[in-house]
Amino acid sequence: MKYNIAVVPGDGIGPEVVGEAIKVLNAIGQKYNHQFNYTTVLAGGAAIDEYGECLPEATVEACKNSDAVLLGAVGGPKWDHVPGPQRPERALLGLRKALGLYANLRPAMIFQELADASPLKPSILDGGLDILIVRELTGGIYFGEHVTESGEDGSVTAYDVEKYSDYEIQRIARTAFEMASKRNGRVTSVDKANVLDSSRLWRKIVSEMSSDYGDVELDNMYVDNAAMQLIRDPKHFDVIVTGNMFGDILSDEASQITGSIGMLPSASLADGNFGMYEPVHGSAPDIAGTDKANPIATILSAAMMLRYTFNLSEEADAVEGAVRRFLADGFRTADIAGTGDAISGTVETGDRIAGYI
Amino acid sequence: MKYNIAVVPGDGIGPEVVGEAIKVLNAIGQKYNHQFNYTTVLAGGAAIDEYGECLPEATVEACKNSDAVLLGAVGGPKWDHVPGPQRPERALLGLRKALGLYANLRPAMIFQELADASPLKPSILDGGLDILIVRELTGGIYFGEHVTESGEDGSVTAYDVEKYSDYEIQRIARTAFEMASKRNGRVTSVDKANVLDSSRLWRKIVSEMSSDYGDVELDNMYVDNAAMQLIRDPKHFDVIVTGNMFGDILSDEASQITGSIGMLPSASLADGNFGMYEPVHGSAPDIAGTDKANPIATILSAAMMLRYTFNLSEEADAVEGAVRRFLADGFRTADIAGTGDAISGTVETGDRIAGYI
Ligand SMILES: CC(C)[C@H](C(=O)O)[C@@H](O)C(=O)O
Ligand SMILES: CC(C)[C@H](C(=O)O)[C@@H](O)C(=O)O
Repeated sequence: MKYNIAVVPGDGIGPEVVGEAIKVLNAIGQKYNHQFNYTTVLAGGAAIDEYGECLPEATVEACKNSDAVLLGAVGGPKWDHVPGPQRPERALLGLRKALGLYANLRPAMIFQELADASPLKPSILDGGLDILIVRELTGGIYFGEHVTESGEDGSVTAYDVEKYSDYEIQRIARTAFEMASKRNGRVTSVDKANVLDSSRLWRKIVSEMSSDYGDVELDNMYVDNAAMQLIRDPKHFDVIVTGNMFGDILSDEASQITGSIGMLPSASLADGNFGMYEPVHGSAPDIAGTDKANPIATILSAAMMLRYTFNLSEEADAVEGAVRRFLADGFRTADIAGTGDAISGTVETGDRIAGYI
Repeated sequence: MKYNIAVVPGDGIGPEVVGEAIKVLNAIGQKYNHQFNYTTVLAGGAAIDEYGECLPEATVEACKNSDAVLLGAVGGPKWDHVPGPQRPERALLGLRKALGLYANLRPAMIFQELADASPLKPSILDGGLDILIVRELTGGIYFGEHVTESGEDGSVTAYDVEKYSDYEIQRIARTAFEMASKRNGRVTSVDKANVLDSSRLWRKIVSEMSSDYGDVELDNMYVDNAAMQLIRDPKHFDVIVTGNMFGDILSDEASQITGSIGMLPSASLADGNFGMYEPVHGSAPDIAGTDKANPIATILSAAMMLRYTFNLSEEADAVEGAVRRFLADGFRTADIAGTGDAISGTVETGDRIAGYI
């Protein structure tokens, strides 16, 4: 089979980590007889430098014309002076909206060998953690009206609108229930229904949807409580489904709990099989170009691409297995190394993982 | 001096813990020659049961006519069937708005003797933690428009408006800078300025205000990053200032990090000296009436009242010192007891702390 992938390397360490993920995809292609075609396009700071805008129309078109998008990371202090609407991060928001990527999947998992890296006590984690956060990604306060206005008396007021419609909640709830039914059968829906109308609608629709999934247990939790329970008893959670803003906060909190943010992939899915795949970590401009970046989060993002967009679960398993073998064999990139560990650079890490395949 | 305190015991363990705080206040009154007059009024579930509404006008009036309010906790499963606008928690929102309590102070601190209770590794806390969260409490998405509407096609959309005006940001920023200048001189302002207009205004105003406080260092942080840094390196923070919604989430996350939520007080201040004081924990209906509740958070809330509303800092120090002595002498309520600790009930705890004074 032929698969067309739009590649958005982005800024900082983006191009390096994306390069290693492509190396691993090519190893998969060779072994399983698939052809991956790559079209590289610019977004973020790199696009500002080249075209004067963070998300050129040509980039959006190339992504739309592909089967999936592989993204590195965008942004960096170099573009701190760029005015708001053209800042590199806006490319992310623009891509999400233009490509209809409403379902953001963010696994927060702990690899046995790296359990020590968690800031939480071992007694709380009991050696493991495997949460999937399903964050709504094209609605809510991110995409409602944003207004700043001056009063006649010279005062200034600014507002943003958190808005959800039933169909937006239905489709993200469906994603969460489907995922949970293939995992441990539990969905925790997070909202602030004691204060917000949008949350009350959220809770109502998610509860209605749950009757279609008899094998999945649903509980509802307020966002402030969820922020606590993630620390107190993270193993309570299987799948968490929540809106864009709460999902932004809780998914980052959950990644921090694993202690190994350099290992965490993400997928942003549209209806059908289309998706954009990217590591959770940022562009880390301070280590760009030094062969220090950990490419594993991007490699695991490529595995998610194999699984969710291309429906190649055997191939996805092979990538994840290769990462596990890399760790089991004692290799570590700088960010996850303990004292005394020999350190594997970005390229060596990609080579080894591709080699295991 | 005479001080008039409106007392809102509320539901669950509320009446018990408030009773012990009053015991301690009376011990202070006796030692330092102050007269505390108490007017007890109902709010929350107790008010629903008695008057059919969670916040009777008479309660608001009694609070307005007092110098300060001492509140226990509201809510419980008994009122789960009550429709939204009359749920017990709405009494809190109503009191905050009616009394103009725009500045919520939530210390997240670790008592040396209880450092083990934190879910974080000792290496991260290094034995201590002392963060003050300053949460804006009468604005933002809590008090913007809340609307649910049906479209002609039968679809339903709900929205809530996150709104801030310059003067609201100015006054809460002032509180934060004043607090920081009496503490470790650092303010972290938390927002989502890469997405929200209200956050961009927030960041602009807070930065402008900071020039009035040359001795205080200001840094700005996105809310998703703040949720991570609180776990990764909580000692980074001195004072955190943020809006109502982000403050709700981050203050609960920070309290959980201490591991002893039964110890944490809060103050909600209006212009001038007026304030409402309450423990951070909830109404814990499961242990109500069993003499198991920890009254220390409420006792420390009373200490905040002495400090912030009555300007009695020596007296406030005396209460805090008595709590420290209680812990140093090895006494523990059930929630903070280790294996083998003898357990002190609610009443015994109040008696002992009052006794130390
Ligand atoms: C960069 C920012 C706009 C973005 C978001 O808030 O969605 C990021 O934090 C993320 O979670 O992908
Ligand atoms: C009960 C609820 C409305 C309230 C809030 O969100 O403000 C509570 O969580 C708090 O933080 O005091």
